Amino acid sequence: MKLDIVAGVLNKSRLALSKAITAVENEQEDAVEIMCKLYPHTGNAYVLGITGPPGAGKSTLTDKIAKEYRKRGKTVGIVAIDPTSPYSGGAILGDRIRMLELSSDEGVFIRSMATRGSLGGLSQKTAEVVKLMDAFGIDIVIVETVGVGQSEVDIVKTADTTMVVLIPGMGDDIQAIKAGILEIGDLFTINKADREGVDRLNIEIQMMLELNPKSVAWKPPINRTIASDNQGVVQVVDSIEEHAVYMRESKELAVRRAERIKTEISAMINEQINRYIAKEVINTSGFDNTVKQLQERETNPYAVVDEIVSKVLK
Amino acid sequence: MKLDIVAGVLNKSRLALSKAITAVENEQEDAVEIMCKLYPHTGNAYVLGITGPPGAGKSTLTDKIAKEYRKRGKTVGIVAIDPTSPYSGGAILGDRIRMLELSSDEGVFIRSMATRGSLGGLSQKTAEVVKLMDAFGIDIVIVETVGVGQSEVDIVKTADTTMVVLIPGMGDDIQAIKAGILEIGDLFTINKADREGVDRLNIEIQMMLELNPKSVAWKPPINRTIASDNQGVVQVVDSIEEHAVYMRESKELAVRRAERIKTEISAMINEQINRYIAKEVINTSGFDNTVKQLQERETNPYAVVDEIVSKVLK
Repeated sequence: MKLDIVAGVLNKSRLALSKAITAVENEQEDAVEIMCKLYPHTGNAYVLGITGPPGAGKSTLTDKIAKEYRKRGKTVGIVAIDPTSPYSGGAILGDRIRMLELSSDEGVFIRSMATRGSLGGLSQKTAEVVKLMDAFGIDIVIVETVGVGQSEVDIVKTADTTMVVLIPGMGDDIQAIKAGILEIGDLFTINKADREGVDRLNIEIQMMLELNPKSVAWKPPINRTIASDNQGVVQVVDSIEEHAVYMRESKELAVRRAERIKTEISAMINEQINRYIAKEVINTSGFDNTVKQLQERETNPYAVVDEIVSKVLK
Repeated sequence: MKLDIVAGVLNKSRLALSKAITAVENEQEDAVEIMCKLYPHTGNAYVLGITGPPGAGKSTLTDKIAKEYRKRGKTVGIVAIDPTSPYSGGAILGDRIRMLELSSDEGVFIRSMATRGSLGGLSQKTAEVVKLMDAFGIDIVIVETVGVGQSEVDIVKTADTTMVVLIPGMGDDIQAIKAGILEIGDLFTINKADREGVDRLNIEIQMMLELNPKSVAWKPPINRTIASDNQGVVQVVDSIEEHAVYMRESKELAVRRAERIKTEISAMINEQINRYIAKEVINTSGFDNTVKQLQERETNPYAVVDEIVSKVLK
């Protein structure tokens, strides 16, 4: 079964890829073995992260970028992170709607992931789905996520190229979010560029970039699109490709990928230790007693944590 | 100095409270000792979590709720979590703007926290700031955060009462976010209720609540406000108080607070172990070598993680 999936992914079976992703998502027993076997076949896909505030039109833009890459002869994988229910999941509907438009194309593989469960878990799972698509032989893997939460930002910021999508004329909250994701953008796209305020937004981004230059060698381009009308998408893909060339030639790509590996390993360790502590400490009857003592202020959280950590760590 | 701060907080010195919060935020050496000494004096404040999508008017509503509580003779603390830069911080401006309106009132204490640094760290720090305000003697502590990221949701969902703020007529992305935070609401407030679509949103929330009832004993009320005009705020505060009575009488409060303690302890352990692993493993020259081996696919992440975890855990 495991070997079937592994062989299937390497032989470009879409069904096998689906099964492998499901194994990872559901933390099936065979997931780790599948990932171990496929890891040597990864490292060839280029990873594009797309983020921005809710309502910026990221999904539409992602789909158009995918289509443009298809025109250029590349295969595309899309990992869409849905900011939906931590309880009931909810990526299914979005998945289906998008599938309708792109599903007839064998060169595109789409998977939505709900942000259920722990986010440590999510960023790890996202990384693994990217690797699965990579091993499958996909050229460009696009990871799309709402850029609001820190963890959601973390997920895209280690992509080979990170694109931030903004739209003109949103309120103060959005301004704050914008500030939060400006630093991670290698490229900026102002979507819904027929709206009022597009020039002002452009100037604002430019000013913030000049105040906090990320690099001297790469100046993030600011493109404008109306994704729903497919306007400006060719230019966006050109910019992504220019950045990819820059990343390769400047050796920045290897540096960022090393960073990504570190982030991934940290997340995996974190996840594993969390699981251990939940099982061995937090969800035990002995700990219920400790909680009671804490509620009655007979001890304090710092003493409790110190004791647990010194018990757990070598 | 430490003792001064501790004594100051207990003697209701606003300056001491500010200093204590800064110590926690900046992870100053004396932070843990301050927290340990103040912990026995906590447990009296009622904690209200307010969350909702960007642009829902949470800050304005929070301010009006604070003012209504002041009219009712209660002191109020506000911990506002800004979804701003993980790098440059950015809570300062918002802080100042809000301070202008409420700063003349000695019965209100406001602190904004930027989502810089790790979110594990943020949720821990938020919990500690709540405890500091609690020890200071504040009656109602309001924690306000954008309900988009999983971690941001985690921060408010362990409040004594959690209120979800929504507004009519936002796009599909917002619908998804709404689905993600519906389960955590003890109360719902439809803000900007003069906008079109208010009845539809009300019906949608009702339907979702009927499909997924959280409890048989408590039916989350859905209030309507125009916070900028102070409309509907009295009713919202009445609902909060009704929920507080329900929480106390049903003994749910003790259960949720035990849950909160567990969540906090887990986060603290997590943070401490992460720090240990970053220092002892990830940021060592030996690990750079491992990263190189991973980049050349000579090993795989799962083997690396297993080795590190078995070295680190007892």
